[in-house]
Amino acid sequence: MIIVMNDPSKEEIDRIVDKLRQHGLEGNCLQSNGKTVITGIGNATTTDVGFYERMPGVEKVISIVTPFKLASREFRQEDTVVKAGNAVFGGNVLGVIAGPCAIESYEQLRETAVAVKAAGACMLRGGAYKPRTSPYSFQGLEQEGLKILHAVSEEVGIPVVSEVTDPRNVELMSDYVDMLQIGTRNMQNFALLKEVAKSDKPILLKRGLSSTIEEWLMAAEYIMVGGNENIVLCERGIRTFETYTRNTLDLNAVAVLKHLSHLPVIVDPSHGTGHWRMINPMSKASLGAGADGLIIEVHPCPEEAVSDGQQSLTPGNFGQLMQELKMMAVAMGRSL
Amino acid sequence: MIIVMNDPSKEEIDRIVDKLRQHGLEGNCLQSNGKTVITGIGNATTTDVGFYERMPGVEKVISIVTPFKLASREFRQEDTVVKAGNAVFGGNVLGVIAGPCAIESYEQLRETAVAVKAAGACMLRGGAYKPRTSPYSFQGLEQEGLKILHAVSEEVGIPVVSEVTDPRNVELMSDYVDMLQIGTRNMQNFALLKEVAKSDKPILLKRGLSSTIEEWLMAAEYIMVGGNENIVLCERGIRTFETYTRNTLDLNAVAVLKHLSHLPVIVDPSHGTGHWRMINPMSKASLGAGADGLIIEVHPCPEEAVSDGQQSLTPGNFGQLMQELKMMAVAMGRSL
Amino acid sequence: MIIVMNDPSKEEIDRIVDKLRQHGLEGNCLQSNGKTVITGIGNATTTDVGFYERMPGVEKVISIVTPFKLASREFRQEDTVVKAGNAVFGGNVLGVIAGPCAIESYEQLRETAVAVKAAGACMLRGGAYKPRTSPYSFQGLEQEGLKILHAVSEEVGIPVVSEVTDPRNVELMSDYVDMLQIGTRNMQNFALLKEVAKSDKPILLKRGLSSTIEEWLMAAEYIMVGGNENIVLCERGIRTFETYTRNTLDLNAVAVLKHLSHLPVIVDPSHGTGHWRMINPMSKASLGAGADGLIIEVHPCPEEAVSDGQQSLTPGNFGQLMQELKMMAVAMGRSL
Amino acid sequence: MIIVMNDPSKEEIDRIVDKLRQHGLEGNCLQSNGKTVITGIGNATTTDVGFYERMPGVEKVISIVTPFKLASREFRQEDTVVKAGNAVFGGNVLGVIAGPCAIESYEQLRETAVAVKAAGACMLRGGAYKPRTSPYSFQGLEQEGLKILHAVSEEVGIPVVSEVTDPRNVELMSDYVDMLQIGTRNMQNFALLKEVAKSDKPILLKRGLSSTIEEWLMAAEYIMVGGNENIVLCERGIRTFETYTRNTLDLNAVAVLKHLSHLPVIVDPSHGTGHWRMINPMSKASLGAGADGLIIEVHPCPEEAVSDGQQSLTPGNFGQLMQELKMMAVAMGRSL
Repeated sequence: MIIVMNDPSKEEIDRIVDKLRQHGLEGNCLQSNGKTVITGIGNATTTDVGFYERMPGVEKVISIVTPFKLASREFRQEDTVVKAGNAVFGGNVLGVIAGPCAIESYEQLRETAVAVKAAGACMLRGGAYKPRTSPYSFQGLEQEGLKILHAVSEEVGIPVVSEVTDPRNVELMSDYVDMLQIGTRNMQNFALLKEVAKSDKPILLKRGLSSTIEEWLMAAEYIMVGGNENIVLCERGIRTFETYTRNTLDLNAVAVLKHLSHLPVIVDPSHGTGHWRMINPMSKASLGAGADGLIIEVHPCPEEAVSDGQQSLTPGNFGQLMQELKMMAVAMGRSL
Repeated sequence: MIIVMNDPSKEEIDRIVDKLRQHGLEGNCLQSNGKTVITGIGNATTTDVGFYERMPGVEKVISIVTPFKLASREFRQEDTVVKAGNAVFGGNVLGVIAGPCAIESYEQLRETAVAVKAAGACMLRGGAYKPRTSPYSFQGLEQEGLKILHAVSEEVGIPVVSEVTDPRNVELMSDYVDMLQIGTRNMQNFALLKEVAKSDKPILLKRGLSSTIEEWLMAAEYIMVGGNENIVLCERGIRTFETYTRNTLDLNAVAVLKHLSHLPVIVDPSHGTGHWRMINPMSKASLGAGADGLIIEVHPCPEEAVSDGQQSLTPGNFGQLMQELKMMAVAMGRSL
Repeated sequence: MIIVMNDPSKEEIDRIVDKLRQHGLEGNCLQSNGKTVITGIGNATTTDVGFYERMPGVEKVISIVTPFKLASREFRQEDTVVKAGNAVFGGNVLGVIAGPCAIESYEQLRETAVAVKAAGACMLRGGAYKPRTSPYSFQGLEQEGLKILHAVSEEVGIPVVSEVTDPRNVELMSDYVDMLQIGTRNMQNFALLKEVAKSDKPILLKRGLSSTIEEWLMAAEYIMVGGNENIVLCERGIRTFETYTRNTLDLNAVAVLKHLSHLPVIVDPSHGTGHWRMINPMSKASLGAGADGLIIEVHPCPEEAVSDGQQSLTPGNFGQLMQELKMMAVAMGRSL
Repeated sequence: MIIVMNDPSKEEIDRIVDKLRQHGLEGNCLQSNGKTVITGIGNATTTDVGFYERMPGVEKVISIVTPFKLASREFRQEDTVVKAGNAVFGGNVLGVIAGPCAIESYEQLRETAVAVKAAGACMLRGGAYKPRTSPYSFQGLEQEGLKILHAVSEEVGIPVVSEVTDPRNVELMSDYVDMLQIGTRNMQNFALLKEVAKSDKPILLKRGLSSTIEEWLMAAEYIMVGGNENIVLCERGIRTFETYTRNTLDLNAVAVLKHLSHLPVIVDPSHGTGHWRMINPMSKASLGAGADGLIIEVHPCPEEAVSDGQQSLTPGNFGQLMQELKMMAVAMGRSL
């Protein structure tokens, strides 16, 4: 904890030092150029920066402790490998999840599952509870969708992931899926994070639409502190001023996360761009940035999809992409 | 529905016209400058823009229907007035909510309540369930806090509002408070919106940290469609590139909302700026922009607050601000 | 200068301390919680943070010196008052600039000048060189426009401001106008800033579309260091994700600047919102936030304007607004 | 031009149709759902959307014409190849520019030039006029720097690029360099764009810090309309809320531009991320996204660099990166 004060009175300095002592830190004062710098020394880790910011005479407060612990590379040096059914994320082999935005019918899902498995996908995605901006839009097949998802999973032999949006559904969903997805709008839904922390299913944690990388790791920290360390992070685009693309896929975040954290990181180029034409180049870009995998929307007939069809690949386009990704993976010393 | 196509084939045009007919719209085609413009005419209101965007040959699709209905000024011309206990929002009289970020103790809350009521506040705020970025930060007194809030409300004679963060708590909280707050992180927590829609308590709906005005009104629409039309909108700052202030208070949104919607709009200058020194000018700015009220953090001893003290006023500063706001309100033909 | 190192070697620490000494600072080391904090003490003011950031073992570097000097409130306690012709900005009296976006003709400008002067404006605006996003849009009447501006100024008896976009035009323009405007796209056009620094005309410095408050004050610093201390800052909206308004008028910046700097601050609600309907409420909001004045687009016939007509007031609407602002100013202890 | 009106009067419709006729367009009216849609048909291309937006009764106006012409893929189907000295951008072979942020001395530049040429770079970069946020920072060696750049270019046999910041310097700089760079802060410095349009040197046009892709292409259009069609676009990161990286490198833009325009696109991962550790992964990501090349900061001793050393590679790291990029290029069917 470093506290910078602007021309403080002796009394103001003493109050800071007293408070530091109460928090278990020894305060060390230095004067320079009209400023007083107090460095709090010791082992206290959770002291609130805001607390000191509002004390009289204080100009700024800098924490020297990383706010995330369990999610940090400092805590665990080696890469974490997360298993979900027989799918694996985080090792040398890249993991690709594919499937439709929303589960529409048994036939639609089965056809997609067969195609994406054949092309090399390790997991099937499909939404049963859909968070939609408008209450007038299709909200998903709900439990009926989960049943379809589970049946297809069994029949085709591919593990499945689906989004959970309500803490009351965590237990129910765990009966049907191999991995629980926290969507972008719920990244800071702390009631939901605390609930999935108690689950024995691995978690696919999407980045919030305007979350900093630090807030994202703090969301992972909520789940890890609660007892569930099987987390795959998923970059899916952030909100910026640019309107040509639906979101701005932030591949910087992939490179940053591989440095800061031991958790696997995958990328969603479908939501990140919003245009099917951009999925191919941005998937390759994701691999280049060091991603451990991808999650891609695939629909047997994108024109007929009930949601987000404009950002879905056909099975044919997906198969072609997977071929290209395999060659790129080899050139980078990985495999797919 | 207007569909712009770039040099389409006759077959591509026919497919669009067929689809419009299936959706109950008559397609009218015009050619200009290499583009084809198809206008879908009729009464269908909920057709999905995305559906047409992914059809072959389509360049862009423009909806000519406002996506929000019940929340729109077109639906209801006159201003809605929302009552919560004896507090009123949306009429000529401005409503000011004040109180601490978090409920810490009976004494702290009672002292604040007495002071803010004396200064002219119509409602007391206080958080019992605190959504915090870090799992290591104080998470609120929870039900114990609600009991304190209710007791102080009764004793001091002032209605109260508190944030609900979990759909499982809506019923419980309704026993203790006069108004339920949906916080910025939960503005698109649709499970929670659907739950408070069933409540008979009025809702204080804060803007999401990076929500557009349209998405915010769509969140209100979720609550109204579900049966609860007593909503007060609250601008609380959006996330931008500027780091000097905690958030960027978007007062444009106040002026826009008074034009687009009949719902009352208040402003939170405490979270919107993050600095207690800015609450005074930004409160006046909010009135200038046409806000129907304010929600301000007040703490008897900001330096000792367990959360967000740097953005709290003392009771003294709050009393001074209220005096200044009263004069401004009069100059604008309103009262406080 | 505070340097935080993560578990550094003795050699890494020594190199930092050596470098600090070369820069005239004494390095003081403290260890805490696996981190080493080195505080550089002394009078050196311009040392580059980036220099230390790239030295081995360094985690972060915090400057404790304010980067702007001449523009800072620390440098000059009292408010600066800027005079341009007989217009005054920065005192108790609010200054309102009004006029068309672009000078179109003598008649258009004269009619506007008479109207805005009668309503209480202290200065006339009008663009002769227009920075337009498209090379196919109207680029301004250039020198012909300046002649019209000067003639109207003389005849109506009102000082004038116009935008300079090219360092080669600074001298020419100074013959025609009382104040030179630096537009939003040129806030970091350093060649231009250095040129206007040599002028004896006061400068209206608009905020860059995505400039931080600090960068804005650094742009003012360029002009002040170059010899011209007569600067009026103008908030005109920043670029955010919100698309309903043309820009997001950041009134927080007004309150922040009145705290950080002694320079006068005015607001441009026309460009800041892009909608004439919002000029009235956002002008009042600006006064509430503590602005020293406004710059408002007024056109005798907005529908016929060659640029930005949708964000212009008619003379009638402007007169009405000025009446309302006068009452608000009085309630705030100022005048107009 | 499509004009949507909300419940207009007959007179309001007639005025629109009259205006369209004056602009050479035939207005075609349709009514639907309380809205009137007027489609202007004809060959007029430059009509201003804003003009119609401010006419009474108008809700929104949509242009159906692409605002950029010469820069568009519609105007020229095949990829443009830009030559600068013997460097080539835009074909199957990737072009990598490398060198220091600022030219510091003959020795520094020569050492860098030899190393980057040996590693496979096709062009040397080096800044002589540095646009710096602070007037107190190093502003570049100016003409002395240009002389060094030219001498090194001749001696080592590698073409060179440097940034021009002032329209008065365009002619001078053309004597020393093979390519002129327009920096991020000057992307909308239209006086400068018009001046380089007259030059016979190719232009490296960096994206503005908060420019949309459309604005960027409009800046290219200014140069092309003025007579210079040899433009290489360079993505260098945009400003967002994320603070961990210096900017957010927007690789979506690469994929979008390859679709919208025929101009070559390269990426600057040094400025785009601000951290030397991220240059390697983000260079690979750029290739994945379809970039035609890179511009990378290389300094013989980053710790001693006078500017931006924390985002520079050593010659050793650069050589390693080039090896890895060559393998990736082959896997993608290109070469380096």
